[in-house]
Amino acid sequence: MTAASHRLPVELIRAKRDGLALTAAELRGFIAGVTDGSLPDYQIAAMLMAIYFRGLDDAELAAWADAMVRSGDVLDLSSIAAAKIDKHSTGGVGDKISIPLAPAVAACGVAVPMVSGRGLGHTGGTLDKLESIPGFAVRLDTDRFIRQVAELGTCLIGQTDRVAPADRRLYSLRDVTGTVESIPLIASSIMSKKLAAGIDGLVLDVKVGQGAFMKDLDRARALCAAMRSIGHAAGKRVTCVLTDMDAPIGVAVGNALEIAESIDVLRGGGPADTRELTVVLGGEMLALAGVVADPAAGQARIAAALDDGSALACFRRVVAAQGGDPEVCDRPEAVLPRARRQVPIAAPRSGAIAAVAAEDVGMAALVLGAGRRTKDDVIDFGAGFELRCRPGDRIEAGQPLAVMHTDHGDDDPRVVEATARLRAAIVIADDAPAPRPTRVLEVLR
Amino acid sequence: MTAASHRLPVELIRAKRDGLALTAAELRGFIAGVTDGSLPDYQIAAMLMAIYFRGLDDAELAAWADAMVRSGDVLDLSSIAAAKIDKHSTGGVGDKISIPLAPAVAACGVAVPMVSGRGLGHTGGTLDKLESIPGFAVRLDTDRFIRQVAELGTCLIGQTDRVAPADRRLYSLRDVTGTVESIPLIASSIMSKKLAAGIDGLVLDVKVGQGAFMKDLDRARALCAAMRSIGHAAGKRVTCVLTDMDAPIGVAVGNALEIAESIDVLRGGGPADTRELTVVLGGEMLALAGVVADPAAGQARIAAALDDGSALACFRRVVAAQGGDPEVCDRPEAVLPRARRQVPIAAPRSGAIAAVAAEDVGMAALVLGAGRRTKDDVIDFGAGFELRCRPGDRIEAGQPLAVMHTDHGDDDPRVVEATARLRAAIVIADDAPAPRPTRVLEVLR
Repeated sequence: MTAASHRLPVELIRAKRDGLALTAAELRGFIAGVTDGSLPDYQIAAMLMAIYFRGLDDAELAAWADAMVRSGDVLDLSSIAAAKIDKHSTGGVGDKISIPLAPAVAACGVAVPMVSGRGLGHTGGTLDKLESIPGFAVRLDTDRFIRQVAELGTCLIGQTDRVAPADRRLYSLRDVTGTVESIPLIASSIMSKKLAAGIDGLVLDVKVGQGAFMKDLDRARALCAAMRSIGHAAGKRVTCVLTDMDAPIGVAVGNALEIAESIDVLRGGGPADTRELTVVLGGEMLALAGVVADPAAGQARIAAALDDGSALACFRRVVAAQGGDPEVCDRPEAVLPRARRQVPIAAPRSGAIAAVAAEDVGMAALVLGAGRRTKDDVIDFGAGFELRCRPGDRIEAGQPLAVMHTDHGDDDPRVVEATARLRAAIVIADDAPAPRPTRVLEVLR
Repeated sequence: MTAASHRLPVELIRAKRDGLALTAAELRGFIAGVTDGSLPDYQIAAMLMAIYFRGLDDAELAAWADAMVRSGDVLDLSSIAAAKIDKHSTGGVGDKISIPLAPAVAACGVAVPMVSGRGLGHTGGTLDKLESIPGFAVRLDTDRFIRQVAELGTCLIGQTDRVAPADRRLYSLRDVTGTVESIPLIASSIMSKKLAAGIDGLVLDVKVGQGAFMKDLDRARALCAAMRSIGHAAGKRVTCVLTDMDAPIGVAVGNALEIAESIDVLRGGGPADTRELTVVLGGEMLALAGVVADPAAGQARIAAALDDGSALACFRRVVAAQGGDPEVCDRPEAVLPRARRQVPIAAPRSGAIAAVAAEDVGMAALVLGAGRRTKDDVIDFGAGFELRCRPGDRIEAGQPLAVMHTDHGDDDPRVVEATARLRAAIVIADDAPAPRPTRVLEVLR
């Protein structure tokens, strides 16, 4: 050990503040102090702000993320023979892609050990959506998770407290210290959790646009570069797909509504963009796994799995194995919770849809009860919106822009606020650009 | 109140992080949260680091410093008819100037309500020096302080816990979060404490050089600009004197030794630079007070007060009033603590003194017991050095560079380390620049 590896925490903060690189040993020591509680919150907060301004270079990023991975349990999936590939989305509105994707990829012979999150802010969470299937359990122990991935090809669960505990402490501090929007901190947070799941490769769906965390393409590319750098340093294959998140994905925004749309996709139907994202991301996963010659061949295999029922069959087995009612795959309307009222929201004028602002739609759904304002909020699984217009569509005054699903009356303050937010989200102009033909902006392999 | 004044603390941190200005109401609210404990340390730490990177503009600086002043007691000195002028030094080695200065200025008819600090790190503190006079009390209550300033023209005390408590919390966090070296934070910390003392004007002795907090002139000028801006916003007259702090001031470094040197100055003697700083800073104080036509006239008045015994007479009354033995003014050697041993440190070679590095001399004295490594260390008042060389002097091998004052033997680890540090501080070369004719680099009025 050199003298430099014994610098005090305040000396490490000062060095980072001054734009000097920290050694791997120093970063490991810092993360160890985050994990074991020996570092006080204020020194972590100061370091996070210094990193916000100064960044982390590739070597620092690798050491920082690796230390976060090692701060908790790392799954051992070596007992599973198939290639193990996960997908992670940086978070969107109407983003239910994991639900059709995991069984579709598994149906093509690739293991998908999928560890998902809950909704936060205006973006929904895969776990909340899955829990709208009565009985579906997302908290399984590790042995059962590994066994199900081995037997059925996939399992969809939530992260345990034992995965990357350093990230949990860092994230809760970032949230209250204005240091969320830092590319190295975002990249290491995402990658540490994914690398702790023992995967061989990862496809990252990096959302760009009004409803995304990354509002512009340059920042999204920088995030991709940081995540790829961390993944490569850990010896993992990483593909980034940058996708458009200006408007919500598909038609449904709200938990049970999104499960129903996911099942439509698993039946070979569903909105074009929801299916496109499933096929494109699945194609990249199959290519990363090496079971197809290239992503285009992978896309064809995924499309076939959606169309021939094999993806749906896999999902049916997963639902049953995780305690849900597999009937949801055949009669979703009979199994899923449904709001008592379906309320059309009419277009105030004729024209062309210039925007369906994803963040605002997400906030409208949250207000209605589909998401959480605080961690303790209880989700109303039936609440949400079915969008009846897409950017570029023509619409006539009085036609529905969307149908609101709610148990509450028109005077309820939640309904009033959600309606106003939904109306504000949808911009009607005299003219609008033609609908975008694809959600995919670019792929970084 | 506008909506902007209700932003959450994390929103204020983000705004500052992004380089946006905060309103006066927002800054007042933030400092109120620092003072009443409602803001957690981690949010304060993040804000301090954001300010480190983004700074505070003049309006922000005024509001931030004013809120710090109002976080605690503000002295009311309006009962004192004379102009009330204080001096503050940013901290040096051998900097005993307050001790001859306060009585010299008071002897010229200006009130000097002097609130001083303790030593920290390599710089000594006026309070520690005063306490080396047996019985001298630096903790007086406010009424007694005001009465003594009114009666004797000056009183030298320590800051109470009730002055600028926000600064105390901020300073302790800055110390452990790498945010000490921020000009707006330094400026507001100094000025908030001084403005809380109810003064009319302030002369700031801003040290520049190896032994100073500000290592270069540009940063020192920026600090002056920030402090002047705060002072002017508060309606106070402020003069900044930038002075050289490459080598220790005068001859004595150590508490009782520095009191003895101060008394030499008060008797009209003392080292040339100690006297020069007393005369120059005093001249500026008299000019700020308006009792002389200009600083040059002020300097002449101060020199006269040192030479005619009136400054010493004032100091004698102050010592007696504050519980010390006034005999110290006449027979300092009989009253002040004196180390048992005086050990010459010989020059290892002949040559010219190229440097007497102030910070290293200060650290050598600290190691010997003249300062504190931690707040709980007890000071050895007799310990220290008498320097026997100045930059630019010629020296012969074997002549003393300095005389070390210590109670400990040559084998004592403190003596060994202090000797090594003192030797390292003094650089002997074949040639050296001529001695600098003045300590004063520039004056900003």
